[in-house]
Amino acid sequence: MRIYDIIEKKRDGEKLTREEIRFFINGYTNGEIPDYQASAFLMAVFFQDMTEEERAELTSTMVESGDQIDLSAISGIKVDKHSTGGVGDTTTLILAPLVASLGVPVAKMSGRGLGHTGGTIDKLESVPGFHVEITSDEFVDLVNQNKVAVVGQTGNLAPADKKLYSLRDVTATVNSIPLIASSIMSKKIASGADAIVLDVKTGAGAFMKELDEAKELAGAMVSIGNRVGRNTMAVISDMSQPLGNAIGNALEVEEAIATLRGNGPEDLTELCLELGSQMVVLANKADTLEEARERLSENLNNGKALEQFKQFLKSQGGDARVVDNTDLLPQAVHTFDLPAKQSGRISEIIADNIGTAAMMLGAGRATKDSEIDLAVGIVLDKKVGDHISKGESLLKIHASTDEVAHVKEKLYESIMITNDPVEAPPLIYDNITE
Amino acid sequence: MRIYDIIEKKRDGEKLTREEIRFFINGYTNGEIPDYQASAFLMAVFFQDMTEEERAELTSTMVESGDQIDLSAISGIKVDKHSTGGVGDTTTLILAPLVASLGVPVAKMSGRGLGHTGGTIDKLESVPGFHVEITSDEFVDLVNQNKVAVVGQTGNLAPADKKLYSLRDVTATVNSIPLIASSIMSKKIASGADAIVLDVKTGAGAFMKELDEAKELAGAMVSIGNRVGRNTMAVISDMSQPLGNAIGNALEVEEAIATLRGNGPEDLTELCLELGSQMVVLANKADTLEEARERLSENLNNGKALEQFKQFLKSQGGDARVVDNTDLLPQAVHTFDLPAKQSGRISEIIADNIGTAAMMLGAGRATKDSEIDLAVGIVLDKKVGDHISKGESLLKIHASTDEVAHVKEKLYESIMITNDPVEAPPLIYDNITE
Repeated sequence: MRIYDIIEKKRDGEKLTREEIRFFINGYTNGEIPDYQASAFLMAVFFQDMTEEERAELTSTMVESGDQIDLSAISGIKVDKHSTGGVGDTTTLILAPLVASLGVPVAKMSGRGLGHTGGTIDKLESVPGFHVEITSDEFVDLVNQNKVAVVGQTGNLAPADKKLYSLRDVTATVNSIPLIASSIMSKKIASGADAIVLDVKTGAGAFMKELDEAKELAGAMVSIGNRVGRNTMAVISDMSQPLGNAIGNALEVEEAIATLRGNGPEDLTELCLELGSQMVVLANKADTLEEARERLSENLNNGKALEQFKQFLKSQGGDARVVDNTDLLPQAVHTFDLPAKQSGRISEIIADNIGTAAMMLGAGRATKDSEIDLAVGIVLDKKVGDHISKGESLLKIHASTDEVAHVKEKLYESIMITNDPVEAPPLIYDNITE
Repeated sequence: MRIYDIIEKKRDGEKLTREEIRFFINGYTNGEIPDYQASAFLMAVFFQDMTEEERAELTSTMVESGDQIDLSAISGIKVDKHSTGGVGDTTTLILAPLVASLGVPVAKMSGRGLGHTGGTIDKLESVPGFHVEITSDEFVDLVNQNKVAVVGQTGNLAPADKKLYSLRDVTATVNSIPLIASSIMSKKIASGADAIVLDVKTGAGAFMKELDEAKELAGAMVSIGNRVGRNTMAVISDMSQPLGNAIGNALEVEEAIATLRGNGPEDLTELCLELGSQMVVLANKADTLEEARERLSENLNNGKALEQFKQFLKSQGGDARVVDNTDLLPQAVHTFDLPAKQSGRISEIIADNIGTAAMMLGAGRATKDSEIDLAVGIVLDKKVGDHISKGESLLKIHASTDEVAHVKEKLYESIMITNDPVEAPPLIYDNITE
């Protein structure tokens, strides 16, 4: 077998065999196939795509290129949730204790990562004392006892994907459905979940700006998951404006607490109920989505979800008093309102730009070694479709400095007000199950 | 400027600017742009093509990446001929003295190369004493005196093309019209000719198997040539069967002599007259193609072309007596006829396979360091459309050994005889002038 023939075959739009895909991935990972042939192959895939079978094979091979987490010591069906990323996405903080409160085991492996805010671990670390430095055995024990635990990324997951991604990143071959789908799914599958609920975002603040693309990506990932034996479904949700109101680390924890108490923003609560009921059904803890949703709603209102969150924080060293007294969370020194310059209806809140503004305040990492400020961020007072009067506050800025003129400028540029009627965008566009 | 953006732009089908093309070629040639980005770019070009303007810019930049031969000391319009390669293509040996006999200066830079037989220089070296080791000054003087001289490749022509070609060769990006056309033209233009006649072959024995592809390549090269200020045209000619009858080095010299004497194979003579009249007109040595052809035919019949060939051989140390006594050329020790196994009409002579058989006899180089045997080869007795009786000879094998069973087998597999009517293929399909 020669890599040249495999490049040529894909270039000419033919379907690769299992053996050819394995030859490519294994040869590239072990350095026998050079970068310049791999990048030509990737560009050929960009143009010629891959069949569902090829995509599943590519994913399996990347999974097998590294460690695979074994969660078999945890009883029950382990359901993982993955979001394709957006601005102000607080769902994981809420979903983990919420579905755990119905007995779904949540063994969450999470990262810090780059972006507008920190990752789930950074956010949780704004709770004083909370830490993820636990052993694998402790992790398993915690999930068995409390149904929920979070641990940092361990092991060498899908190194083939890591190497390929670095190459795609410099050769303009990132934006390819088969390559994106196999990259995400290889890491999820290697993380050991039995079932996967995907939250695929669409709109200006998402990786997939267009609904069609988001549906295509969701379909690709669902197909891969199911083909490799992991029960997988996807929800397509809106990211044209930020989700919920808070963008920032401690601010999102505060928002999560409010939501777990039944007082969260409407869109965030609704998305958590949607994703949560899918997770509960996949975990066999309810027979229908309706039943799951009803029981999740109950637990938001009867304090059980909040209690689960407290216990989770405590079990990993966190000060659970933050739940009843959010002043114990890191607080920004300065806060500023952003008064509207005109009256009207909010027609657009450009999610990407709001994220950038949060990053300018120090909420996220630009490089792997950046320090992040857990206290700072933005809390929206209005969302798309809301009416606002001139001088009324659009949002509150939480900052560590009083020099925020450039941030305000950025924010003004990112929020449009109109005199025309405006409809709020739908929150959920579609569910993809096959 | 970043190479990433240039790859992405081409990937998305946009037209690159002059500056972007120069940035890519210069950066790749000097090693600043790595192979893996260049190969992704090449694959994007494979799929998205290039406009005529981009192709011309790519070619110019590759020309400027190395030496450019200065032929200005040679008086008159220097016209070069280039063939895209085939089997038994003796045209250069004939055309050089033929058009020189009408005063067209032929300053031929030629190579040895790999292939079924040697290159033009190898063929000429079957004339005892003939050599191409002459200085640039001698070369210029010889052309000014005798109108024709041949020299080996000198200088570092289009190193950017050389580097790119090596990369294309291992990344399945050879077969792309803009890349093939710019590669060929960059070397031709760097060689210094004022005008170029291209002989683009089509059919089973050619690089471009299909007429449509050959026309597209011809159009691409003609456009590039004219855009960079070299008067360029192309003839599309048949290579479904070998051209002429001889395939081999000394055997082709013998065939060239016969043709220059007016006794050559019909197809070879016709193609030389076609290409020759185009060269004569481009060199301003005749007003019309008809006039040029008539004068060329005259010189084949009145001995002037042959006299020009003798003088050319002598001027580069060759024994011109070979013209009148071809026994002085290297002679194979063994010759064998290949008797037809059935009667009928020849329906196919697979050019590629005949070439391979010649190579098996030792007529060509498989690697750069292979020795070639100037005496060996094949001479066809019949061409497509001819009638043959069982037992009559299809061709003669000239070999250095009497163990030629495998060659015979290959040849039998390559020549088809049928009882159905057969039409000889057309020799010339089209002329492309813009």
